[in-house]
Amino acid sequence: MAKIESVRSDFYQLPLDVELSDSTHGAIPHFEFVTVRIKDSDGGEGSGYTYAVNSGAAAFHALIEGYLAPMLIGRDADEIEKLWQDMWWKVHYSGRGGHATSAISAVDIALWDLKARRAGAPLWRLLGGYDPKVPVYAGGIDLDFTIDALLAQADGFLAHGHRAIKMKAGRPHLREDIERVRRMREHLGDDFPLMVDANMRWSVDQAIRAARELAEFNLVWLEEPTIPDDIPGHVRVVREGRTPVATGENMHTLYEFQAMISAGGVTYPEPDVTNCGGVTVFRKIAAVAEAHNLPVTSHGAHDITLHLLAAAPNRTYMEVHGFSLDRFVAEPMVFEEGFTVAPERPGHGIELDWSQLEQYRR
Amino acid sequence: MAKIESVRSDFYQLPLDVELSDSTHGAIPHFEFVTVRIKDSDGGEGSGYTYAVNSGAAAFHALIEGYLAPMLIGRDADEIEKLWQDMWWKVHYSGRGGHATSAISAVDIALWDLKARRAGAPLWRLLGGYDPKVPVYAGGIDLDFTIDALLAQADGFLAHGHRAIKMKAGRPHLREDIERVRRMREHLGDDFPLMVDANMRWSVDQAIRAARELAEFNLVWLEEPTIPDDIPGHVRVVREGRTPVATGENMHTLYEFQAMISAGGVTYPEPDVTNCGGVTVFRKIAAVAEAHNLPVTSHGAHDITLHLLAAAPNRTYMEVHGFSLDRFVAEPMVFEEGFTVAPERPGHGIELDWSQLEQYRR
Ligand SMILES: [Mg+2]
Ligand SMILES: [Mg+2]
Repeated sequence: MAKIESVRSDFYQLPLDVELSDSTHGAIPHFEFVTVRIKDSDGGEGSGYTYAVNSGAAAFHALIEGYLAPMLIGRDADEIEKLWQDMWWKVHYSGRGGHATSAISAVDIALWDLKARRAGAPLWRLLGGYDPKVPVYAGGIDLDFTIDALLAQADGFLAHGHRAIKMKAGRPHLREDIERVRRMREHLGDDFPLMVDANMRWSVDQAIRAARELAEFNLVWLEEPTIPDDIPGHVRVVREGRTPVATGENMHTLYEFQAMISAGGVTYPEPDVTNCGGVTVFRKIAAVAEAHNLPVTSHGAHDITLHLLAAAPNRTYMEVHGFSLDRFVAEPMVFEEGFTVAPERPGHGIELDWSQLEQYRR
Repeated sequence: MAKIESVRSDFYQLPLDVELSDSTHGAIPHFEFVTVRIKDSDGGEGSGYTYAVNSGAAAFHALIEGYLAPMLIGRDADEIEKLWQDMWWKVHYSGRGGHATSAISAVDIALWDLKARRAGAPLWRLLGGYDPKVPVYAGGIDLDFTIDALLAQADGFLAHGHRAIKMKAGRPHLREDIERVRRMREHLGDDFPLMVDANMRWSVDQAIRAARELAEFNLVWLEEPTIPDDIPGHVRVVREGRTPVATGENMHTLYEFQAMISAGGVTYPEPDVTNCGGVTVFRKIAAVAEAHNLPVTSHGAHDITLHLLAAAPNRTYMEVHGFSLDRFVAEPMVFEEGFTVAPERPGHGIELDWSQLEQYRR
């Protein structure tokens, strides 16, 4: 038994190379990044992280430093399911999801990294192992790009080995969205896997109208057509919009996924390992999806997520997110013909460059 | 138009006179308390607060200080619905409920207090006004009290003017719960309004069994029989347990109440104004309940809640919570024959003793 000796959390604000934008968050000049480093009594180490679009991550940091870290000291690092439950109930009254789940996610990822590194195994093998070669798509955050910039971004994605692309929708007029998707479809060819993400911009009826107008473009999925709180609305979009629907990046509990999936409101469940509850909950969501005869995709944090999808038989495209950590990691992910391969390094295999991060400390 | 000039937030840890306990949180020696004070350009002021059982409130404070306060400066203090939406979306990605909602609640309460004080009206009148005389019940947090202490607590409640009482359940053996309720029923008489609160301790089948065994005691309601994430489970407890069910203190959005209410999973919706989204959302939950032919009760923060229930035609018993601020307020609430009367002071009428609070700053 290895006891947890220390839990350290740090909070950074990372600038983006290009200011991004979507229909919900508007301009996104930076993202907030909270890390966790755990050491055990045998000298083992694990790291994890969570992040937020623009704002809110100070709460993750406050929760980890103020409540989660102190309760973990001295505990058996291997009993992650038990630690997860204790963390959940520790901040349940004040949270029950939301910021609580992101804080727990960062700790949970660090605990799984520690466990895998102690076992000398890459995380995806520890989690069961399915296939290290995972299909990916490039997630563009490009709502306000000109069409020329949109197509140029697509060319860049292709040059980097991508063979599937997601673009944003939710412009002031649906006509604009249709035109942008049309141009992308023409540019990429009829059979190229293309997804569209509305970031919750639409009402249910607007989403159904959009889905029907987008039908001719043969999308892989339409993402977050409306707010995730509206399960009956999602069921209508799936059925009346006659389009596959992805959602999940704003769903923060296993129960929320269960409710949405069992109602038939989502075709591509899309958890984010950094805000759904970590590795522990992501793999349960994947199992619930599998039990409902559905694939599982992902949002954000592709370097961690890769291990989860490489261990899930029902995995489909992994999102390669625009919030890249490539500047700060020793071996960035490589894409070839639309796939990436999970590493054989122990743990999740991400070594952050802490001294490089230092300048962005908040 | 009055512009918001300053938003100040403070964080305290308030000890309880007696250590309390329930089936979820175990021993509760203190509660965490976060206040908000807003000043406008006309010299107007408003105050609000939120709280947490034991832990997590540092995140409320971090969200208010780091994200909500800065975005409010210079805005029109009267446009609360707009400010609420902007706050919700500001921390939506990182939260979508949970800690985000409690932080927003504290600000929202301060904005409503400011608005009512500017109007020279008590909040309950500003909100529409129904009846200032509101029925109340004393919420005992007494799971680990001996039966003698439980009955003595009840006598204390009676002496303070209460004519309805809630007690905790969720002991290791259901037999113990039954015995405790039996003794309370005998002590209080057949027609005395008595509620029982399990704080999510049970599985659905355990809750149904408990509800049936408790049926002979003619409870007003059975509270939080299981986790609020399980809507179909609540529907089963209502129907198969043949008991009215209260829930809501762990539900953090209007949407969660809508889903639970429309499914038929709750008989007594029980929002907490400090964690459901503030005055703005509490009154919408009350409206959704009314539209579904249901009463609305409450959890916690009775000094604020009183105004909401005094303005709601479907209001039933208000909880008088064990986390009392009486030590810190100039005019504590008075109970007579099971009722309290909403004050005629402007705003919510609570003047906190800031210098007295100072010793508990965190
Ligand atoms: Mg998305
Ligand atoms: Mg309760």
